[in-house]
Amino acid sequence: MKTTVIGLGLIGGSIALDLKKAGLASEVIGLEQNAAHAARAVELGLVDRIGEKEEALATSDLIILAIPVNALGKLLPSVLDKVHKDAVVMDAGSTKSLICRAIAHHPKRSQFVAAHPIAGTENSGPEAAFEGLFRNKTNIICERDKSSAQALDVVSQVFDALGMNTIFMEPEEHDKHVAYVSHLSHVSSFLLGQTVLDIERDEKNIFALAGSGFASTVRLAKSSPDMWAPIFEQNAEYLSQALLEYIMHLQKFQYYLMKRDAKELHRIMADANRIREILNGIEHKQTKQQIAK
Amino acid sequence: MKTTVIGLGLIGGSIALDLKKAGLASEVIGLEQNAAHAARAVELGLVDRIGEKEEALATSDLIILAIPVNALGKLLPSVLDKVHKDAVVMDAGSTKSLICRAIAHHPKRSQFVAAHPIAGTENSGPEAAFEGLFRNKTNIICERDKSSAQALDVVSQVFDALGMNTIFMEPEEHDKHVAYVSHLSHVSSFLLGQTVLDIERDEKNIFALAGSGFASTVRLAKSSPDMWAPIFEQNAEYLSQALLEYIMHLQKFQYYLMKRDAKELHRIMADANRIREILNGIEHKQTKQQIAK
Repeated sequence: MKTTVIGLGLIGGSIALDLKKAGLASEVIGLEQNAAHAARAVELGLVDRIGEKEEALATSDLIILAIPVNALGKLLPSVLDKVHKDAVVMDAGSTKSLICRAIAHHPKRSQFVAAHPIAGTENSGPEAAFEGLFRNKTNIICERDKSSAQALDVVSQVFDALGMNTIFMEPEEHDKHVAYVSHLSHVSSFLLGQTVLDIERDEKNIFALAGSGFASTVRLAKSSPDMWAPIFEQNAEYLSQALLEYIMHLQKFQYYLMKRDAKELHRIMADANRIREILNGIEHKQTKQQIAK
Repeated sequence: MKTTVIGLGLIGGSIALDLKKAGLASEVIGLEQNAAHAARAVELGLVDRIGEKEEALATSDLIILAIPVNALGKLLPSVLDKVHKDAVVMDAGSTKSLICRAIAHHPKRSQFVAAHPIAGTENSGPEAAFEGLFRNKTNIICERDKSSAQALDVVSQVFDALGMNTIFMEPEEHDKHVAYVSHLSHVSSFLLGQTVLDIERDEKNIFALAGSGFASTVRLAKSSPDMWAPIFEQNAEYLSQALLEYIMHLQKFQYYLMKRDAKELHRIMADANRIREILNGIEHKQTKQQIAK
């Protein structure tokens, strides 16, 4: 299957590697605005070649968009305009409502599958791509009923090749859930980083005291603003809800802190400890992934 | 050197293992309120035996307290009362102002060293203890000038055996710094866990969407409330300051989010990205630790 990947960063590059390895993509053509990234993606063997846009879109059987969600909304309709009638188009964006609305009335809507393979690291660009990024992780497909059976079939082969488990959701439900379990943790991490960097201006060498716990909590603050600013903007409503709840919990905690109410602080933390079971589940998935490597 | 370790959890157990291995402790006696933990610590070989309190304190050359900071403030004066005149006493608590005040006028103040070896995991109890927990990490000693040369000498042998680098600070400075780089990240993590668990009551299966990023950010929410509630209570002033700053940054972020000001969101995140260098430094320390293993 002749495949074009648009956007050769962490996500696009990693998908390209896995599709090639699985033999699903006979040829992988890359399209990438950033010339240095394009060249590096070829050097790293992420794609077979960099294509010319019109030709790549007109001749590919599978087109995967892995670009920031603001660019995605603008580019997707024109991509659909240019592909042939049996081609399948999919995206990998972290928000789904706006993109589904953007192509809701497109004549080739059924050739598109709205997907969100949930995987990533705090690194970005072609250098960050690696084989197996997606293995044993969850993929979400939205508006399944608006995609043709053929498009769903091709895309399911893609996610099989990536080793992902697919679940189905409506775009609004998707955006709400990821606001809590993905977007909010990025915001909390970015702003924890900012808070500590801020105080460091006055208090030198504060980081001599930072250990692995701090590093873990603040790791996502290394993530790419180019990727995340558009995601946050598109998911502003749900993320803002989640953020308000988080702030409310922090303020309550601060209230009990100022009252020196150790009993109530203890109760809140003991309640939060229930996260252990959930994290064990996530770690179990990751372990399966390690073994599968 | 006959050594007594009071409190056989993650910290006390790991110190005991390293001191025994380094040959610094000829015998390690354990004191532990929790009978099950005491028995398990002996089974696991963390200590040579469980001691009888009066005898252990009267005959040991080195006494290490590794108990929650609220218990520490109560127990330390009576421990100092009972040790012989050449014995050295040290603690490992995460707050230092209250404990230093609690023994400021004790006749045996100079036999005590106020220490905070900064290391840990989100696990607790004797099962969580392991050799090398402290290697290449930072230890802080407070009120160095109030400890005798002999006490400082013994304690520096202890931290050499643990493989730690010691720096010196005043208690208030210590408490302020750890509020930002340790206590705040625990609070942010506990309450992120709580926020997401809360929403899960209404939205089932939300955790199918959680990935390694969420797991990393929320990892510290698994930490022991028995240990952390007293720390937060004792460091309430500085932690509250840090928490207010964190909340202020979150609120500003939410403001720009609601204004759909992607440019400002981008600027904030790009600024927070500077944490990358700092994290590289922490990871470098950890890598040295891995190699040293």
